[in-house]
Amino acid sequence: MLKKLDELIEIAQQKKKRRLAVAAAGDTAVLQAVKRAVENEIIIPILIGNQENIEKFAGDIGFDLTNITIYNQPDSKDASRKAVSLIRQGEADIVMKGVVSTAPLLKAVLDKEYGLRKGGTLSHFALIESPHYHKLFGVTDAAMNIAPEFQEKVDMVNNAVEIFHGLGNPEPKVAIIGPLEVVNPRIEATAHAAMLSKMNERGQIKKCLIDGPFAIDNAVSKRAAEQKGISGEVAGDADILMTPELNSGNVLYKTLMFLGGSTSAAIIMGARAPIVLTSRADTEKSKMMSIALAAAM
Amino acid sequence: MLKKLDELIEIAQQKKKRRLAVAAAGDTAVLQAVKRAVENEIIIPILIGNQENIEKFAGDIGFDLTNITIYNQPDSKDASRKAVSLIRQGEADIVMKGVVSTAPLLKAVLDKEYGLRKGGTLSHFALIESPHYHKLFGVTDAAMNIAPEFQEKVDMVNNAVEIFHGLGNPEPKVAIIGPLEVVNPRIEATAHAAMLSKMNERGQIKKCLIDGPFAIDNAVSKRAAEQKGISGEVAGDADILMTPELNSGNVLYKTLMFLGGSTSAAIIMGARAPIVLTSRADTEKSKMMSIALAAAM
Repeated sequence: MLKKLDELIEIAQQKKKRRLAVAAAGDTAVLQAVKRAVENEIIIPILIGNQENIEKFAGDIGFDLTNITIYNQPDSKDASRKAVSLIRQGEADIVMKGVVSTAPLLKAVLDKEYGLRKGGTLSHFALIESPHYHKLFGVTDAAMNIAPEFQEKVDMVNNAVEIFHGLGNPEPKVAIIGPLEVVNPRIEATAHAAMLSKMNERGQIKKCLIDGPFAIDNAVSKRAAEQKGISGEVAGDADILMTPELNSGNVLYKTLMFLGGSTSAAIIMGARAPIVLTSRADTEKSKMMSIALAAAM
Repeated sequence: MLKKLDELIEIAQQKKKRRLAVAAAGDTAVLQAVKRAVENEIIIPILIGNQENIEKFAGDIGFDLTNITIYNQPDSKDASRKAVSLIRQGEADIVMKGVVSTAPLLKAVLDKEYGLRKGGTLSHFALIESPHYHKLFGVTDAAMNIAPEFQEKVDMVNNAVEIFHGLGNPEPKVAIIGPLEVVNPRIEATAHAAMLSKMNERGQIKKCLIDGPFAIDNAVSKRAAEQKGISGEVAGDADILMTPELNSGNVLYKTLMFLGGSTSAAIIMGARAPIVLTSRADTEKSKMMSIALAAAM
């Protein structure tokens, strides 16, 4: 059971060093996070972007580029395509977004001919360290799927579960979140939660324990669950919280970060390689931990 | 600017003592909260329910019932109707739910002939004290409106604003929450936020400052708002956070309470009188503060 994001670094160190292809790497904050990941010996970076900028910014922060592969691709679309093609050619293991907007990078990832699709749904996953919970837990989806259809939710569960397997938890507990803990046919989130739970019971979704609907309280507090008469192994001890749509996923994630004292690492799952897609507002630690998460799983 | 829920008691003490009609009062936890409100001299209780139980439980906790009006209505539906009729007759100012389910109490409140409707939408409002924010703030709606239509959202804003006026803030800052801070026509929450903001600018919604869409971070953190280039008086300093539907409202409220170290007071607004509608899981302090909130506004 992981309790601190820092443990991701140790896990990643025990595994084969992953090759990180950074699309549009010419940015101080991005290079700073990559530098720290290199210092922790968890990745081998491949820097793609405006070579002149990369060398200048690396110099500014004392990042020694000796023996590091750099591809000079000043156009950010070209840089995105190059990062994706390195994965396809087996020359990189993780894609990281640099100073390119999310849209062109995802366009390159999703390209039907040259991209990294493998059939399922791409989804955002955040691993959270909260002072109010007894272990790290996952939140999906705070950033990608606006109003996922049912089958997309199945994919999202599997994407999140795959991360926990990679981190050494063979059967993570998945709480499907709704605004209450009973099935109400007028509230789709609760109907979907019942279906996902039953699919898990029947072996249609494997290697995890799914239960729901839960409101947040019953998912993370044994006491709250007991007061409502909810038993089962997931109640009060969830590893993964899956929200019904983007509105609630984003509110959950941002409330944890900005009104809950939490820190996080986040990646996009569902493509042939994990994608590190941090935003400018993320702290340097959060960016570095997102790399560590991709490298650890 | 209020910083602590405890300040509600002082505000209520400065106002005329409100008469609190408790429907189905025969419960130790309910009577304990009422007792504390009486001790703080903020309400005059009127207890409705099974008189024998009320007297027994009051005796257990040392609650002196001398000079307190009791109506013996052992049936919880009758007790709900009695509480509502006391408001209509001008003999009570606040309704409080005791050991009756929410449904029959709301049925009595919403009854077209004998109820407390005044034309608008009923909505849930929670006043939050968070260790991660510089003042008390409101959250609406965590418990009542599943998927409010646009006009219902206008009512919900007005309901929340009315509370802040009662607490001495003549122009509260209302942040309309969505999963991102730009207008995206595919995401209704963001379209509604734009419309509510403009209605405020044009004087269609008065005595408050409305802005949105905001994700939670831009609404509560000036730094996060600045990083996204969002200015204005509401950004980073919101008094009220309005979520687009129940999924995200419930997630926001419960994350604050169970993963954010917050405490709260909550009431239902939009009827002719505020309704204190606490749940079994609420702490005694939360129940007492909900009474204080209703009495203070």
